[in-house]
Amino acid sequence: MNEFGKIFKFTTFGESHGKAIGVVIDGVPAGLEIDEEFIQSEMERRRPGKNEFATARNEADKVEILSGVFEGVSTGTPIAMVIFNKNQKSKDYSNIKDIFRPGHADFTYWHKYGIRDYRGGGRSSARETASRVAVGAVAKLILKQLNIKIESGVIEIGGIRGTDEDFEFAKTSEIFALDKNSEEKWKNLILEAKNKHNSLGGVVKVRIQNAPIGLGEPIYYKLDNILASGMVSINAVKGIYIGNNKSHTLTGRENNDEIGKESFLSNNSGGILGGISNGENIEFEIYFKPTPSIFQSQKTIDIYRNEVDFELKGRHDPIVAIRGSVVAEAMSAVVIVDMLLLNMTRTMNNLKKIC
Amino acid sequence: MNEFGKIFKFTTFGESHGKAIGVVIDGVPAGLEIDEEFIQSEMERRRPGKNEFATARNEADKVEILSGVFEGVSTGTPIAMVIFNKNQKSKDYSNIKDIFRPGHADFTYWHKYGIRDYRGGGRSSARETASRVAVGAVAKLILKQLNIKIESGVIEIGGIRGTDEDFEFAKTSEIFALDKNSEEKWKNLILEAKNKHNSLGGVVKVRIQNAPIGLGEPIYYKLDNILASGMVSINAVKGIYIGNNKSHTLTGRENNDEIGKESFLSNNSGGILGGISNGENIEFEIYFKPTPSIFQSQKTIDIYRNEVDFELKGRHDPIVAIRGSVVAEAMSAVVIVDMLLLNMTRTMNNLKKIC
Amino acid sequence: MNEFGKIFKFTTFGESHGKAIGVVIDGVPAGLEIDEEFIQSEMERRRPGKNEFATARNEADKVEILSGVFEGVSTGTPIAMVIFNKNQKSKDYSNIKDIFRPGHADFTYWHKYGIRDYRGGGRSSARETASRVAVGAVAKLILKQLNIKIESGVIEIGGIRGTDEDFEFAKTSEIFALDKNSEEKWKNLILEAKNKHNSLGGVVKVRIQNAPIGLGEPIYYKLDNILASGMVSINAVKGIYIGNNKSHTLTGRENNDEIGKESFLSNNSGGILGGISNGENIEFEIYFKPTPSIFQSQKTIDIYRNEVDFELKGRHDPIVAIRGSVVAEAMSAVVIVDMLLLNMTRTMNNLKKIC
Amino acid sequence: MNEFGKIFKFTTFGESHGKAIGVVIDGVPAGLEIDEEFIQSEMERRRPGKNEFATARNEADKVEILSGVFEGVSTGTPIAMVIFNKNQKSKDYSNIKDIFRPGHADFTYWHKYGIRDYRGGGRSSARETASRVAVGAVAKLILKQLNIKIESGVIEIGGIRGTDEDFEFAKTSEIFALDKNSEEKWKNLILEAKNKHNSLGGVVKVRIQNAPIGLGEPIYYKLDNILASGMVSINAVKGIYIGNNKSHTLTGRENNDEIGKESFLSNNSGGILGGISNGENIEFEIYFKPTPSIFQSQKTIDIYRNEVDFELKGRHDPIVAIRGSVVAEAMSAVVIVDMLLLNMTRTMNNLKKIC
Repeated sequence: MNEFGKIFKFTTFGESHGKAIGVVIDGVPAGLEIDEEFIQSEMERRRPGKNEFATARNEADKVEILSGVFEGVSTGTPIAMVIFNKNQKSKDYSNIKDIFRPGHADFTYWHKYGIRDYRGGGRSSARETASRVAVGAVAKLILKQLNIKIESGVIEIGGIRGTDEDFEFAKTSEIFALDKNSEEKWKNLILEAKNKHNSLGGVVKVRIQNAPIGLGEPIYYKLDNILASGMVSINAVKGIYIGNNKSHTLTGRENNDEIGKESFLSNNSGGILGGISNGENIEFEIYFKPTPSIFQSQKTIDIYRNEVDFELKGRHDPIVAIRGSVVAEAMSAVVIVDMLLLNMTRTMNNLKKIC
Repeated sequence: MNEFGKIFKFTTFGESHGKAIGVVIDGVPAGLEIDEEFIQSEMERRRPGKNEFATARNEADKVEILSGVFEGVSTGTPIAMVIFNKNQKSKDYSNIKDIFRPGHADFTYWHKYGIRDYRGGGRSSARETASRVAVGAVAKLILKQLNIKIESGVIEIGGIRGTDEDFEFAKTSEIFALDKNSEEKWKNLILEAKNKHNSLGGVVKVRIQNAPIGLGEPIYYKLDNILASGMVSINAVKGIYIGNNKSHTLTGRENNDEIGKESFLSNNSGGILGGISNGENIEFEIYFKPTPSIFQSQKTIDIYRNEVDFELKGRHDPIVAIRGSVVAEAMSAVVIVDMLLLNMTRTMNNLKKIC
Repeated sequence: MNEFGKIFKFTTFGESHGKAIGVVIDGVPAGLEIDEEFIQSEMERRRPGKNEFATARNEADKVEILSGVFEGVSTGTPIAMVIFNKNQKSKDYSNIKDIFRPGHADFTYWHKYGIRDYRGGGRSSARETASRVAVGAVAKLILKQLNIKIESGVIEIGGIRGTDEDFEFAKTSEIFALDKNSEEKWKNLILEAKNKHNSLGGVVKVRIQNAPIGLGEPIYYKLDNILASGMVSINAVKGIYIGNNKSHTLTGRENNDEIGKESFLSNNSGGILGGISNGENIEFEIYFKPTPSIFQSQKTIDIYRNEVDFELKGRHDPIVAIRGSVVAEAMSAVVIVDMLLLNMTRTMNNLKKIC
Repeated sequence: MNEFGKIFKFTTFGESHGKAIGVVIDGVPAGLEIDEEFIQSEMERRRPGKNEFATARNEADKVEILSGVFEGVSTGTPIAMVIFNKNQKSKDYSNIKDIFRPGHADFTYWHKYGIRDYRGGGRSSARETASRVAVGAVAKLILKQLNIKIESGVIEIGGIRGTDEDFEFAKTSEIFALDKNSEEKWKNLILEAKNKHNSLGGVVKVRIQNAPIGLGEPIYYKLDNILASGMVSINAVKGIYIGNNKSHTLTGRENNDEIGKESFLSNNSGGILGGISNGENIEFEIYFKPTPSIFQSQKTIDIYRNEVDFELKGRHDPIVAIRGSVVAEAMSAVVIVDMLLLNMTRTMNNLKKIC
């Protein structure tokens, strides 16, 4: 169940402190130029160790392509990409070997599997999301050719909501802030939490432009429920809201998007009707809990059911929403590409056009 | 893509005004007593036409089992269940034949498929959810044997949030209200909206008790992201939040659930850590937009791109969240059963125990 | 696991003596004219009770379409088809309630599931293949529009191999004989076996014409291995051979098909290279064991492990290969359609053409 | 579509002359000791370059495990295994860059994908089967714990059928011969073909002992049709026959396996009834075409449709059935493990036992 997608389908593998993490993508259409520099630039956006707002673990996150590309072009066979772990400090974790960190998956992995790779959270570490960014980058290469654009940014930190959504600004912001006016305040909140050995949650917005009408396969592989699946599968994401996040408080009259000759007259729906894209911008927001790794004493138990007062060590993000936004883009990209490919197969007209 | 689940897997079919709707469940374990009365009682909870807070379309929603059950017991073969449509009034829809109703899937189905069964929304109608309740009832029969309990209710209507969560009260409430003190106010809001030919949105809470530790298959078939997928696939659901819906505004210190000898000391996580159930109550809420079907004039276009001022006729729920809560329970039940079955296969110990 | 296919995907349900059997097809492209007469004519070809070479169970096998078709055209939503059982004589089976018939699935179903619908073999009955013919007929409607043709016939009965392969003759033959010169002999063999309360095996050939180059998804969803999967899933089929059934005895020199300007210079490969169609006729043969239902005394045990001498009653085909050939065509058709749809998604060129 | 299995599911990747080939296995139960020496010993059995009956390409086929194993034990997370290619001689292939080799997948890959990695056949090379042996070895580690045994050997070469089936002898034979008396003759046939720059086909038998009753999920994931799928997916395999390969020539009386108190009284069925294992040995044979790589002049065309007389160079097996038998075992092992895991989930009794 480490796979995602139907036609553009990928499987990730790897643990935080294992030899390597990686991904195999099955279903990349043949004839795609694989721009390795672009892939690496996407890795760079998510990469840890860049500034004081992220963990100090410094990984180059160099992607090696092992298969599926010949003379720079995809051949239609599986593309395997590997990122070797370099900057593990597994010793940091010897003290948590038998202890369940609050807010982490230690407790549940151990009970489910009867064994747990405790080094850095093992498989449950957000390190896995580097693989998602790699596959997302390949998906984005496809989307580029179709002029479909995916952007994201942070709209809320520590309970303080921004008022502006400037996706261009977010690209230049160290914390991917969507609101220029809130950036400074947010930075201070983060550093303050960090200094107090605490952490913060946040909200990320994603916007997809130029997606054609018709993406999404009702009833159980709708565009919105698969975006929801993809987003909530990201570490620390607790929720998603598609379109206007006040829709549940509105009346039908207020919430319905009337339709004009050229386009919809509003976009409360977030660009999705009946689970299918309607040609408007696809928009949603996702809710990140605060990083569970805090450096304060907490009550917990060990694997022998002894009560323990426990203080974490290590290197961690004071807020995961920031780097998480890059992962959200990646997951959005793979969903859109999968839906594009599936949608090709849905009419006799298309079938006759290709055959 | 009209299927859901991996082991306990089902496919629904049928349109609002077609001959029948129904479902085929593949993967029901053999040896389950199929209590048809219970299935019908679940249908009754979702059934339209019961009171003034729901649509007047009066369907008996009688489930007929065609296969997979022998002498009252599941045989391990597919269980097909059919509900014949009885109370269609397709004529109500002749005037929308060529028109895209705002807030509905008319526009997207037509553009995606090049054809659309316009009668009552066809496949995109919430009528499909009757099939989900039928399959959910079978899932609940399995859960009953394991003492796992799923409940739900409405916690917010028209932007007014309830303050109490009384799942017992919800069962007796005509509008499945979780908060006794808000019930009257909510009823009035609904009737007021109805009288104004308008509609309302709402929020539903689901609570699952007694689920064992270990449900959920990381990384892409986690308990939370599949619940998210299932919930957002329900008509009119725009979002989901797992656990404390304020988590993104809290600090790690506040949000982390410390762990005691017998149980977690709080449950901000909603009973899920790293995508796996932790033995606490599994809790989440989902956000329903207001019913798009309102009886007021709205701007739209027809399939020839002419602008039209359009006023809907027909029979509709003034708020879908209420009956939607039953569907949310059903989808929760099928997810939990699927996760239970998958979890059996995850350790060598289990394999040896069975073989 | 009662489903087959990836994009053109179907799930069958139903038992031999239950209320109904049927199928839900998910993924029929929208815009296909659903010719119900053609579907019924395919059912007629497989239908039992037509002549002395088949079982006397007389089922009209009338297909009812419950969904997915609007004004005679597929809408892209699931097509559910049901065939109500009419001519069950379940009483015939009361004497086998506790007994495992040799050559049948009684023994394995009972041990696997701990329960068994003994009436007519329940789910393991070849009656299930009527559903396959229905879905195969829909697939053939798609293939017709692309001028792809699937034919079959019987090439061997009771160990006597025919020397000619005349697919046109087979269509008119009561026993779907490919070899006009062997037909009489074969008919006599069948009647002779029938009179002795015995049964025969046989070999069926399938030929697919006009399939485009490129069908088949390596490495595990190749055209040949999925045809093999589909064929061996048919009741009583024990094997398959693709292309020249002597290939394993030849040298590379003899077996390789050299390539000319317009086409291959021979077709030992059966039209498939590396799991992908090469534009030649796709050809294979499948091996049917003799009907296990014979009316002679056989040694067996009952569910209490008592040894029993057992003589079957009921109505059965003296040879299943004949009617089985229609099922083989149906399964071929669904595989080809699935591969056609999948193949659309495999190049950037196609994606750009559709988007 | 480079994946196989439902619960024990794997995806392979890699090309013959790329950087590496490999596999990711998803669904290995936690708590399995991963005996790397055993895995390597299985690789050794399939490894090329060992003797004059196989290709001279000398690959160590060293498997590197990148994930999913902690302190020697499986953790339940994906196990990625990589084999770096060492002994490529890609220059050998520069002359076939634009030419379609008869009997190879060059023609079909090029037409399907519009691009082809021509070095050594790229993805279509039997080199991919090394990954299968690696994953098969992991499956065998599971089977060992359950005392289930899989063996194979060669029963026919160049049209000469052996008369004895001695699986112990096959293990010691350089050509995995099942028949001691035929071994010498077969070796001579191979060397003779090799000297003539030709190649041979053959037949491999597989036998599985101690599989429990109940493996196989009817109707479309039966034990036999999935074995068929797995086997025919192996390079050069053109067919499969389950059980007695004369069944189609027998009468029902002759073919039916009567049932005794302790076991079946014969095993024409090959241990599978209704697609489910019946406790007898599971037995089948598979048919390999002769290696298409021969060093004689053949007629073909190039990508510009020019006719060419073409003579292959390079290093190739004179017969693929020999090393192919190891691959057949591997594919058998993964099917059996998948069926074991699926079977756990099929009864309420099992579910209650685990929960």
